[in-house]
Amino acid sequence: MTASTPTGPAVPVAPSVSTQIHLASRPTGWPTPENFRTVRVDLPDLTPGQVRVANTFVSVDPYMRGRMNDVKSYVPPFAVGEAMTGGAVGEVVASTAESLPVGTTVLHQQGWRDVAQGDAAGFTAVTPVPGVADSAFLGVLGMTGLTAWVGLTTIASLRPGDTVFVSGAAGAVGSAVGQIARLLGAKRVIGSAGSAEKVRLLTERYGFDAAFNYQDAPVREQLPTHAPDGIDVYFDNVGGDHLEAALDVLNRDGRVALCGAISQYNTTEKTPGPDNMANLVKQGLTLRGFTVGFHLDQAGEYREKMGPWLRDGDVVTDETVIDGIDRAVDGFLAMMRGENVGKMVIRTR
Amino acid sequence: MTASTPTGPAVPVAPSVSTQIHLASRPTGWPTPENFRTVRVDLPDLTPGQVRVANTFVSVDPYMRGRMNDVKSYVPPFAVGEAMTGGAVGEVVASTAESLPVGTTVLHQQGWRDVAQGDAAGFTAVTPVPGVADSAFLGVLGMTGLTAWVGLTTIASLRPGDTVFVSGAAGAVGSAVGQIARLLGAKRVIGSAGSAEKVRLLTERYGFDAAFNYQDAPVREQLPTHAPDGIDVYFDNVGGDHLEAALDVLNRDGRVALCGAISQYNTTEKTPGPDNMANLVKQGLTLRGFTVGFHLDQAGEYREKMGPWLRDGDVVTDETVIDGIDRAVDGFLAMMRGENVGKMVIRTR
Repeated sequence: MTASTPTGPAVPVAPSVSTQIHLASRPTGWPTPENFRTVRVDLPDLTPGQVRVANTFVSVDPYMRGRMNDVKSYVPPFAVGEAMTGGAVGEVVASTAESLPVGTTVLHQQGWRDVAQGDAAGFTAVTPVPGVADSAFLGVLGMTGLTAWVGLTTIASLRPGDTVFVSGAAGAVGSAVGQIARLLGAKRVIGSAGSAEKVRLLTERYGFDAAFNYQDAPVREQLPTHAPDGIDVYFDNVGGDHLEAALDVLNRDGRVALCGAISQYNTTEKTPGPDNMANLVKQGLTLRGFTVGFHLDQAGEYREKMGPWLRDGDVVTDETVIDGIDRAVDGFLAMMRGENVGKMVIRTR
Repeated sequence: MTASTPTGPAVPVAPSVSTQIHLASRPTGWPTPENFRTVRVDLPDLTPGQVRVANTFVSVDPYMRGRMNDVKSYVPPFAVGEAMTGGAVGEVVASTAESLPVGTTVLHQQGWRDVAQGDAAGFTAVTPVPGVADSAFLGVLGMTGLTAWVGLTTIASLRPGDTVFVSGAAGAVGSAVGQIARLLGAKRVIGSAGSAEKVRLLTERYGFDAAFNYQDAPVREQLPTHAPDGIDVYFDNVGGDHLEAALDVLNRDGRVALCGAISQYNTTEKTPGPDNMANLVKQGLTLRGFTVGFHLDQAGEYREKMGPWLRDGDVVTDETVIDGIDRAVDGFLAMMRGENVGKMVIRTR
């Protein structure tokens, strides 16, 4: 032992610089590159029980827009002048924690940077699935897929034989919703998306029974033609006109899982709710909002289901990969504009 | 037996004329007396297995307004030119059914008339509660009370320690909601009503912890001052601004039971929903609509609970009684205008 190294076993310390994205100022409406700053930070030596992780992929997600505001919400806001956080997967490159030796693949919340470091308790070892990139832990095997799972099962109480409608269906959550619904016994799965190419993906790749482009005509006109017998479950990723259209055609005891409302994250004014709330009483409908963070206890059960589905090709996923931590903000903004197909991730290694 | 009486056991046949209220035309917006017609009908002799019932009280309820429209709903519309129907309680005055001898008190759906007649299967024998008028079977012991019970328990999943807010709290359903919530362990019960006198009733007679007059100032301003720690359950009898105000202050995992929306029964235009639906996601809220007709399986369990509460004075009720079937329409319209305190009933005997 020398004065310049930590106590404990010999530890490789490189890379010792972490490139991180800080929140420079709070955006009003749509974020711009000026709201962010790329900062290079020298990491301190590890203290006992810590790990240093070279991230392979970091996640950019719609909910992060909410954390850029200084308002009370289900997760605390990002602090101005500090590194943002979020999902990330990486490999342990230095460790003073027996439980997480060098080489372990770990899932954690120190995203928005290429190298993470901290107490081992903040990192969860995961077992890579053969043939599946580790970025899946940020998507269909992670919070994204769990969001679909929790929304369909716990929140919307999906039952075999249900007809399910999903908005934002070509997105990371939506494409998982459609495929999981089918695997859980849905009779018919209908999706909406914002381009002809995405609509084609829904029916040709993700196995939706019907799909439409919400830019072609009002959702309220299009949805009924694709749901001649009504719908039983609506998985809402967008709010607004889609929710209104769904409330028109929900059958008795219909259920809505409200999962964020990406169309409203950037609005600074209050927007009126659906004009047909009376249908809730008439049809005995249930609307339930949720955020996956309150349902993490289901993550283990979920991964046990989804791992084999993925491995066997029962569920297919797409992702849009942006290379380099320096382009993380570009990736985030592109995702907010809907330019991604499937989960948007930043490759950092 | 003589030629003028039916075969079978001796049957008293008087009264043989039924005074009934028919729907003459469908109202647009607020109903007027011209939409109704009083008709005297000669009843046919009983066939085997039937009863004739002299109604003591018939019910007028907000949901009946919906049945006057020709739209698909949870109950079929009233037919123009025929007698309307609804809750009624009366005494069997003639019977060819062994199960319901003369003198039995029965609850049934042939309201809007002073004498009812039909197969015994359409009438349910009930046991009068000592010291309680039979009109209670149309109110706190009947659909009205069951609506409060189902809404609080099945729909809103009331838990001991919850803070409960009720709108239309001085009404028949609302006053039952407040008192049942307290008996089931609510920590704090808050009510709104439309006059100073009703507000006084809420705190002085029905045991609400706090109450306010929604005419004094916007609900959105008044509710937070009465709910410093937020609310956990909102029992919605009115919709509109009350629902919006409740969504502002509902705590995490808060639940809303949507029970009709009397403020909107007479509107012919669609009205925008709450402007803060995003709170459903942020706070994990559940909005669930219901109509009591789909929960009648709970009526027995409910009456077993409420009978003793009523008898022992744990629950107090008020009713507004209008005398005479000829004034049933007046009573219905007065109820729609909110002029009643507690359940509005028509005394027909």
